[in-house]
This record gives sequence, structure tokens and C-alpha cells, in this order.
Amino acid sequence: MTEIGFIEELLKEGSSLILEKLAVRKEVEVRTKGAARELVTEVDLAVQKALTDRIRSRFTGDHVFAEEGDASAFPDHPEDRCWVMDPMDGTQNFVRGLFPHLAVSIAFAVGGQAMASGVVVPATGDVFLAERRSGAYRGSQRLMVSDMDRPELARVEVDFSHLNERQDLMRRARDVFFRFGNVRCHGSAVVGMCQIATGDMDAFIHMRLNPWDYAAAQLIVEEAGGKTSRLDGSPLQLFDRRWGVAASNGLLHEPLLSAIQP
Amino acid sequence: MTEIGFIEELLKEGSSLILEKLAVRKEVEVRTKGAARELVTEVDLAVQKALTDRIRSRFTGDHVFAEEGDASAFPDHPEDRCWVMDPMDGTQNFVRGLFPHLAVSIAFAVGGQAMASGVVVPATGDVFLAERRSGAYRGSQRLMVSDMDRPELARVEVDFSHLNERQDLMRRARDVFFRFGNVRCHGSAVVGMCQIATGDMDAFIHMRLNPWDYAAAQLIVEEAGGKTSRLDGSPLQLFDRRWGVAASNGLLHEPLLSAIQP
Repeated sequence: MTEIGFIEELLKEGSSLILEKLAVRKEVEVRTKGAARELVTEVDLAVQKALTDRIRSRFTGDHVFAEEGDASAFPDHPEDRCWVMDPMDGTQNFVRGLFPHLAVSIAFAVGGQAMASGVVVPATGDVFLAERRSGAYRGSQRLMVSDMDRPELARVEVDFSHLNERQDLMRRARDVFFRFGNVRCHGSAVVGMCQIATGDMDAFIHMRLNPWDYAAAQLIVEEAGGKTSRLDGSPLQLFDRRWGVAASNGLLHEPLLSAIQP
Repeated sequence: MTEIGFIEELLKEGSSLILEKLAVRKEVEVRTKGAARELVTEVDLAVQKALTDRIRSRFTGDHVFAEEGDASAFPDHPEDRCWVMDPMDGTQNFVRGLFPHLAVSIAFAVGGQAMASGVVVPATGDVFLAERRSGAYRGSQRLMVSDMDRPELARVEVDFSHLNERQDLMRRARDVFFRFGNVRCHGSAVVGMCQIATGDMDAFIHMRLNPWDYAAAQLIVEEAGGKTSRLDGSPLQLFDRRWGVAASNGLLHEPLLSAIQP
């Protein structure tokens, strides 16, 4: 398939744009969209535009579904070829933060399923790539989820989302906090899910993700031997207009789901 | 004062030892102390020994109070000259993790108060240094806390600690989760407090820290214009055998404390 090589090129370009701006991040223009807590920077917009232009000139007719602006409307023909992109996940962390947990995420989907996908973490230079039924890689290293099967020793990544959505996490996921040994919250769903694939983390939950937040990382997790689902255990589908996401090394999937209230 | 220059040398040595082992971290020997969740590696022990030897040969007679082994007993003469060291804060993150949030922390204290202190984050190379009444620095950059005064837009660092201590956080700090806009949990108290000093984060709470976890970072926060206290607002003293710690940019200290139940 030619898409995976193209994704790698797109990630390289996105990463360069972000690294340039990361060096001078105090000067980057930050705006809010809707609520004051929702940040968007000129970097998110520039990366999305640059990569969208490249996709359109290479694969004329393919749909681009991405976080910013008009591109964030769900596609009219969800079965068709579609590129699902988050130009910069972790915008809060870009604007502030000693360790920039942020990533560019791109998936190529057909029939609402990612077929090839990639993520770059500019701060570390890590590039994650996966093709369906061909494994997931970081550079030349084939990725494999952890073999941790004891929740009380496991590491779970959570996300506290925005204040007005937080009640949901604190109520429904209360038992996750009381059963999992190590809780982390880094503020990037894309990076958090990739850390399941590398085996650095063992489980991940998020109460409300858009498809561009998980499309690429979902395939990376699955191709590394992990499991993903909705919070009730049903399969993740990109365009089903549901929002909760669970991911794990597989061994911890049942303990994770059983700790989440309906 | 000669101590600050010496601290800088100690940090350089500690950082080198950690970086060497970080490159081969899958081969590092990991043991547990007491409970299976409490990890200690050969790296923690090697850094503590190397730095303790250097302190003892340079300042004969000074007490060394540090996380591992016998050195963790509270000093018999808390008013005397004392070096307070965490050889590696964030051991969990050392053993696993794409972004190694971990640090070496060293404070030189007299009368139970840090007079000079330093922290190194090996993964980024950042070195933080502070002397009482002389400011805090990262390299040549003088540090200053953020000017964020709106909890709903602020970033707060929390720590979920061990499972058997988590009830305390979830009960007492419940309102922190419902009033602060961005919650993060990186798993290193030392790094978390330094991020208050840099202005990357705005507030920090921890239900249970030992003196080696905060001795150095406390001075760094204060010298960057921030505020630290116990969870009830009383002053932090290194040897008072109390455990809760709050730190902030000052502007958010009252809102932070008022969100914590007694």
C-alpha cells in the first residue's frame, strides 16, 4: 500500500513545523475556540493546512476529516476513502510544559476503519506507524503491548477533560482510581494510546474523544497486540458518533471495563 | 556560599549515572521495598552512594538524609548542617515510560530550612538551582512563576500515590478536581514542583511527601516567587514529620487550599 509511506512523509512535515514553533512557543499566537479553555494556536492551523494540501494534491477526491474548522464536520460518505487527522494533539501542553506531550496523528480509513496510520511525537522524534494486519512499529522496532495482568501494579492513563465534562469521569470511573496501582495524566490522548502500544502504559480510558483523537492510535494499539473498545466493550467505529474509548494490553481490558460504571 | 557550586557538580554526576542506565533501562535490576508497588533500582542506590561519598569527603561531619536505606532515618540533630537528597524521584517512570519524568534532588539545609538547592532532569538536561534570597534559575534563565489567577483555566499537578493512600486524595481533594481547569499527573513530585517555578504549571498538591521529595524544589518554587505550605496553610518545615504539601504561583494558593478538606 502506498498510503503508509505517504503518512510517514506527512508526519515528517508536521513534526518540522511543530519543532520550529516549539522553540519559540512563548511567541506563538494562542486563541480560544468557544470556551476559554479550548485552545487553538496558529501551529494547529498551519499543520492542518499544510498536510491537507498535500493529501488533496496526492489523492484527489479523498475526504479529509480533521480537528480544526470546517474539516471537523462528519463526512457525508463515511464508507469512502478518508484521511482522519489531528494536526496537534496536546495543544495545552504545547502552550506550556517542560515535557511537551503532543503529537501529530494521521489515519487513512476506508469503510470507517483505519487501514494505515501514523503518529509522530516531535519532542522525542518518535514515529509510530501501523498497517492493518502488518504490525505496529516505532522506527524499526516492532511494538508489543505489556504483559502486565495485575491492576494493582498496572499503569493507567486517564484524562480529566474539561471542567464541564469532569463529573462523568469522577463518577463513572471512580473504581479505576481505586483498583489501578499507578495513575497518570499527561494530557494527550494520542500519546497516551501509543504508550499502550509500546508497553510503557497498560491501560487507557477517555470519556470523550473525537475520531481524530484515536483513529491512528487505535490501529497502532491493535497491531501491537492490544485491545480497544467503547467503554461498554463494543467495538470502536470511527463514525458511530460515540465518544468513550478504552484501550489496554488486552489482559487488563476486562478489569478496566468492569471498573467503569454505565 | 560554596554549597551551590558543589550541588551543581553533584547533579552533573547524578545525571550522568542516570542517563547511562536510561539507555539500557530494560536491563536495569528492579527490586521492591516492602510492598510490591514500591520500586527501587540499582540506579537509585548507585546515585545515592556516589553522591553521599562525595558529600562526606567534601564536608566531613555534615549529615546526609536521603531516600534509600539507613539514610532515610530522620536526623538526631535537625538544626545542624544537613544534605537532603532524593537520588532519583520518579522511579516508576524510569522503569517504564516514553517521557522520563524523573529527577535528582539535592538540598543543603541548616536549621531545618533549605539554604541552597538543585534539581536535574536528566531526560531534558534541565538544571534548576536556587539559593535563599538569591532567586531560582534554570541554567542562566531566572525563573518566575506564572501569573494565572483563574482556577478554571489553571493547570494543577496532583499525585495519586499508592493505592492504600489514594482514598485520602479522592476524599480531601475532591474539589480540586472540580475547580481547576487542567489536571495533570506526571508521577514525579520533584519535577511537578519545578514546573511551578518555571510557570509551566500553576498549582501542585501531594498528600504525602517525604522531606527529600520537596526540600530542593520548595526553595526553587519560593525563589521563583511562588508559595509553598502544608495543606492547612502552615509553613513547610523539613523535619516536622508532617506530609502534605501544597505549592503554587502564590495567586492560586488560597483557592487551592480552600479546595482541600481537613
